[in-house]
Amino acid sequence: MSVIDLSKQVALGIDIGGTNTKFGLVNHRGQILAKGSIPTDQYGTPEEFIDALHKEIQPLIDEHGVDKMMEGIGVGAPNANYYRGTIEQAPNLPWKGVIQFADLMTEKFGQPCKMTNDANAAALGEMMYGAARGMKDFIMITLGTGVGSGIVSSGHLIYGHDGFAGELGHTIVKPGGRKHWSTGSEGSLESYASATGIAITAKKMRAEFPDSMLNQYPEDTINSKTVHECALKGDPVAIEVFRYTGQKLGEALANFVMFSSPEAILLFGGVIKAGDFILKPAKLHMERNLLPIFRNKVRLVFSELDEADAAILGASALVWEK
Amino acid sequence: MSVIDLSKQVALGIDIGGTNTKFGLVNHRGQILAKGSIPTDQYGTPEEFIDALHKEIQPLIDEHGVDKMMEGIGVGAPNANYYRGTIEQAPNLPWKGVIQFADLMTEKFGQPCKMTNDANAAALGEMMYGAARGMKDFIMITLGTGVGSGIVSSGHLIYGHDGFAGELGHTIVKPGGRKHWSTGSEGSLESYASATGIAITAKKMRAEFPDSMLNQYPEDTINSKTVHECALKGDPVAIEVFRYTGQKLGEALANFVMFSSPEAILLFGGVIKAGDFILKPAKLHMERNLLPIFRNKVRLVFSELDEADAAILGASALVWEK
Repeated sequence: MSVIDLSKQVALGIDIGGTNTKFGLVNHRGQILAKGSIPTDQYGTPEEFIDALHKEIQPLIDEHGVDKMMEGIGVGAPNANYYRGTIEQAPNLPWKGVIQFADLMTEKFGQPCKMTNDANAAALGEMMYGAARGMKDFIMITLGTGVGSGIVSSGHLIYGHDGFAGELGHTIVKPGGRKHWSTGSEGSLESYASATGIAITAKKMRAEFPDSMLNQYPEDTINSKTVHECALKGDPVAIEVFRYTGQKLGEALANFVMFSSPEAILLFGGVIKAGDFILKPAKLHMERNLLPIFRNKVRLVFSELDEADAAILGASALVWEK
Repeated sequence: MSVIDLSKQVALGIDIGGTNTKFGLVNHRGQILAKGSIPTDQYGTPEEFIDALHKEIQPLIDEHGVDKMMEGIGVGAPNANYYRGTIEQAPNLPWKGVIQFADLMTEKFGQPCKMTNDANAAALGEMMYGAARGMKDFIMITLGTGVGSGIVSSGHLIYGHDGFAGELGHTIVKPGGRKHWSTGSEGSLESYASATGIAITAKKMRAEFPDSMLNQYPEDTINSKTVHECALKGDPVAIEVFRYTGQKLGEALANFVMFSSPEAILLFGGVIKAGDFILKPAKLHMERNLLPIFRNKVRLVFSELDEADAAILGASALVWEK
């Protein structure tokens, strides 16, 4: 791969997940020049983890000769704080307390480092390289194991006074509803619309309907993928699982729209593979809960970024953000 | 009143309500140099209304000699659009359709004119002259006949892609709940936490509890003021009316906090006269619905602006907004 073919500036994007950490060198067009990953959970301290990252990444930088074109490092991580460059009390990471992660990165790599949570990074990635190019007001909802969000208003991410804004997965859509397995809150969006939530709904519903195709699967294989298989074969209970999920999602989206009036809501993550089974009821229940001035104006759009690369692209977009 | 005593710059603030329109000349410190009002509903066209406004206001401008120090006009009005300078389909105003109000004002007064809805104007007023001075992230909630809101993020009002953001009174706090008398939506915050909503709750509850003091009042006098009287006398049903209202408000506030993570929520309007009867349960239910990272960080604050002048001050603050 020749240096001459590349855009001049390069950013290092790093996505830290509970199990694995992915990284890539990304140019201004969103092309990934090189990428790799290391396990997150095998390093007892952040320093050891950063040493290991550096050992993997420095050869890539050398190989691609991008040393002098590096603009900086962007990191997406759970509970990352944009203002302080910290990771704070992240329940799914091995390092506890408040970690001055950006400073440690800068020390090791000699580059400025910006951080935010993974869903905010995803929103920036869509704005820079994906379905939100040219948009100034949109909301990104990531529907995976959990439900995350990034909110862009007038071209800027909303960080809030403390850097923790945009936890829409934890807003309550049904007061007194389903208890969340981790936070303990009752009736949050995440407890219904995440992959975890869908599995819970499916297990409940198949118990109610012994004729459902869902009962042909062992308990531990019930997830949004198997529900999708059954829905595609026409199983009405599987279809109802997604319809119910879509309704809860749509009711939540209506509230979000009346907050920041975005031109679009972008959906991303494994759950959206269910497509129209979720999207159609989500759209219906969003519209019916909106004031008339907001109706038929907000597009529900799927992410355009490749799922495998989206997290790296999103993290790298932090570097270009003004 | 001598011109020399005043700050140099003056803004004209105008608040258009369904019945009356208030206006005032306001200096940079939030001092009202002169004010007045005209009825809103006695002019068949916006042009006639603006003629009448001009006839009232020009003498004030002349009298105070502020002609050359006028920086512009700010207008707060229902369904006003910040981007387009329009009033659009306002249900409580006599002029229908989409009115190019800012242009008409500029034509008549020879001054630039900015517009927004009344709750957004109130938020700007608090940021410029009131309890939100120095804050960059806060949410203003107006609890009057209806429930309005203005959301400030990083020092700027959130207008959304179309200028209509911040309709938090119409977010749903109880799916399938109380039907709203005007929008028809079910379970919106306004249907519980507005003065109108409180009266509905009080009438329901007094019917359930014949011993309640609230039954000593004629039906058409049941409102947040009479409920407050009974609560002060210790009537448990009246206290429960406010507790229930505060719970619904608090649940909604928790969702708002997880959206934009403000440092404070400002409350304004007639309903807050109930004080701790509403504030304490609101605080309790806000905190219990928040993720731990947001708890005990968000202040619930009452407006510092005089209720009679707040709307004029808020509208005038539009002029200073950068």
